[in-house]
Amino acid sequence: MSEREFDVIVIGAGAAGEVCAGRLGERGQAVAIVEDRLVGGECSFFACMPSKALLRPIELTNEARRVPGVTVGDLDPAAVLARRDEVIANLDDTGQVPWLEQRGVALVRGRGRLDGERRVLVGDDVLVARRAVVVATGSSPLVPPIPGLADARPWTNIEATTAQSAPGRLVILGGGVVGVEMAQAWSALGSRVMLVHRGSRLIEREEEFASRQVADGLREGGVEIRLGVSATSVSRNGVVRVSLDDGAALEGDEVLAAFGRRPTTDGIGLETVGLEGGGHLRVDESLRVPGFDWLYAVGDVNGRALLTHMGKYQGRLAADAILGQQVAIRSDGARSPRVIFTDPQVGAVGYTLAAAETDGLPVRAVDVETSGNAGGSFIGRGAAGTARLVIDVNRRVVVGATITGSEVQEALHAATIAVVGEVPLDDLWHAVPSFPTRSELWLRLLEAYGL
Amino acid sequence: MSEREFDVIVIGAGAAGEVCAGRLGERGQAVAIVEDRLVGGECSFFACMPSKALLRPIELTNEARRVPGVTVGDLDPAAVLARRDEVIANLDDTGQVPWLEQRGVALVRGRGRLDGERRVLVGDDVLVARRAVVVATGSSPLVPPIPGLADARPWTNIEATTAQSAPGRLVILGGGVVGVEMAQAWSALGSRVMLVHRGSRLIEREEEFASRQVADGLREGGVEIRLGVSATSVSRNGVVRVSLDDGAALEGDEVLAAFGRRPTTDGIGLETVGLEGGGHLRVDESLRVPGFDWLYAVGDVNGRALLTHMGKYQGRLAADAILGQQVAIRSDGARSPRVIFTDPQVGAVGYTLAAAETDGLPVRAVDVETSGNAGGSFIGRGAAGTARLVIDVNRRVVVGATITGSEVQEALHAATIAVVGEVPLDDLWHAVPSFPTRSELWLRLLEAYGL
Repeated sequence: MSEREFDVIVIGAGAAGEVCAGRLGERGQAVAIVEDRLVGGECSFFACMPSKALLRPIELTNEARRVPGVTVGDLDPAAVLARRDEVIANLDDTGQVPWLEQRGVALVRGRGRLDGERRVLVGDDVLVARRAVVVATGSSPLVPPIPGLADARPWTNIEATTAQSAPGRLVILGGGVVGVEMAQAWSALGSRVMLVHRGSRLIEREEEFASRQVADGLREGGVEIRLGVSATSVSRNGVVRVSLDDGAALEGDEVLAAFGRRPTTDGIGLETVGLEGGGHLRVDESLRVPGFDWLYAVGDVNGRALLTHMGKYQGRLAADAILGQQVAIRSDGARSPRVIFTDPQVGAVGYTLAAAETDGLPVRAVDVETSGNAGGSFIGRGAAGTARLVIDVNRRVVVGATITGSEVQEALHAATIAVVGEVPLDDLWHAVPSFPTRSELWLRLLEAYGL
Repeated sequence: MSEREFDVIVIGAGAAGEVCAGRLGERGQAVAIVEDRLVGGECSFFACMPSKALLRPIELTNEARRVPGVTVGDLDPAAVLARRDEVIANLDDTGQVPWLEQRGVALVRGRGRLDGERRVLVGDDVLVARRAVVVATGSSPLVPPIPGLADARPWTNIEATTAQSAPGRLVILGGGVVGVEMAQAWSALGSRVMLVHRGSRLIEREEEFASRQVADGLREGGVEIRLGVSATSVSRNGVVRVSLDDGAALEGDEVLAAFGRRPTTDGIGLETVGLEGGGHLRVDESLRVPGFDWLYAVGDVNGRALLTHMGKYQGRLAADAILGQQVAIRSDGARSPRVIFTDPQVGAVGYTLAAAETDGLPVRAVDVETSGNAGGSFIGRGAAGTARLVIDVNRRVVVGATITGSEVQEALHAATIAVVGEVPLDDLWHAVPSFPTRSELWLRLLEAYGL
């Protein structure tokens, strides 16, 4: 048993923890980061990165088919999977370590648990924090107590992003982001995909047109979608059998449980400082756990916004707070910028129209076709896509934006700057989109509003 | 001879004139628009639109080759040219007319010339404007007095964008936007391209790294580039022979004169109101010709910014000014947003570093690799590309941005909003780019600045 002292100890080396530790290290703090699995976390190995490696060739193949002169053949699943393996470095995290080393961050391999104020146990070793402990333990897949589900060895995000071949038939339970992205990926890679979602529409937090267009896109790709239906039991006997509450049953070779995430707060010693595990570790606007001047939580574990970029953002803010700056999180929660990498893609930031109305904001929405302009002759031609701004009519600023369509992922940041920067409509009117790019959708939207 | 009265008469139905007329028509004005050639103008038929039809399949083929799993073959030049013909509607402008009709704009076919205050002659007909005349006569290719050039029947933008087949050898004189885009297009479509530019680098108004990367891209595509060299004489005898001032000579099947544009101000009756033709028709901040309360000029003819989107922007502003609003042009001149559709593409807005320093601004530039982030694993992987922000260190706002790389055209608008909206750096810091998109280049740039 050894005891070592640092300025800051970060528990969990996923994206949020890494960014926080790296930023503190860059600023001269002595930092330890504790990780019992892969440095880089779920995002690098079992979520964002491998899923995009699977999805990018699909959207690009679809887009190439829309552009005469490009000679494009069928997707090559073996090459897609090989590139995916390259992206996740065959689940070897040594490539992630130099980034920490360059910032002077000490990597401590093992499971970290709190052991009273400013103390973290890793096996028999004790790490003591002079300034702060940052909990960045992330989340794990939620597998609800549907009879037989856990015993049926369901896929979670881990298997869904790292499987070595496409199952013949894949039943997906859950029509949120993971559900729709994996339906897109595996149907294109050769699986017959059946998607079961208890809600009345997919990706329910997004605008209704986004749900509809994503469902249409999946159906065109051969995905069978069942809405308003829940699984009542699951069994595996060679094949997986899923019984539904409408009386039907589905048979698959694999079943993916895509019900969401649960925060990793059990078994990390929260009880040693008088906190309870199980739920989210709630934080205030500076990412600090209320009542503790030395305890922070960033990323999925605090439940604010389960998105890698928001975890990283929180990591930066927490680092600055620990360094004594006044910080306050601004982009947050359901209004965080977000992209769903289906085809069409969905990029959104801020309020949906419904959410703004629920919050009582004086808003008006304007919609245009994403490719309904000269730039759309060249990108996303003929593909489904809608761009919506939700505008606060009193303040004359954009409070929400959703853009769907082919390859909209890089178009979202303009909206993010407009929403977060609260750029007045009259300034946006002078921000002239270049011709002929599809960003002229901004012009069309402002004209639709009456400018 | 007939005489007809309108509220506003617009001379020239290119993009700038159309937008101005359409906006006035939408707001209840009686508007006539006069055009002796194609409604839609150079941009629709001989510039932006056909050039992008030629270029998009090239960049997309290159990008598809970077994404394992996409099966892509060689470019199909016949299909590219057929699609280009579709985009320019085989030079038939009837498809452009309904847009004017829906806005109640009267299209008058013929050459319009001023005939004293508020009067426009079209053949024998007289149009009288109750409120204003808007000159939107555009520009034409500049063919400098190089001995033999005019007689050698050089290509201009017209032939370069509408040719029915790739010449075996194409000599391009001029390394500005038209020169580099057409070098990219025709070399990919099968021509051996030789590009001669008298300056020390291509696209000289842009950042030096942009010039270098575009030159490298062209050279990789087989283009032979000669810098710091001028043509001294040209002759055609079956083939075209171009003599250069370094003593060398080039032989081609065609020669493209890409020296820039001259405003169309001759023969439009400016002398009838006491103005001179030949040069630009200068305007003030509300697009009005100084000294005339009824005369406006929008688009290339006023020389402010020879870009379709800026002409359209000016058209909107002029319409609003005619309707009695106070307007002042804000995005303008060399600092206008702009995209060059080579591979790599160049997107830029506001100042280059050199231009800001020349203007005495207290600036600092930060650079990152465009695809040097997680999103770059999927878009523009391994391709050249640099993102630069030019930041006013006193005001802490971005005054210029240049992004080069694969498919950056839709990424520029975020920078345009940041620059035109003068969004404070501290707000940009909270505008979180989504992971894993390449827009994380914003994060890297702000970190490089020290945020």
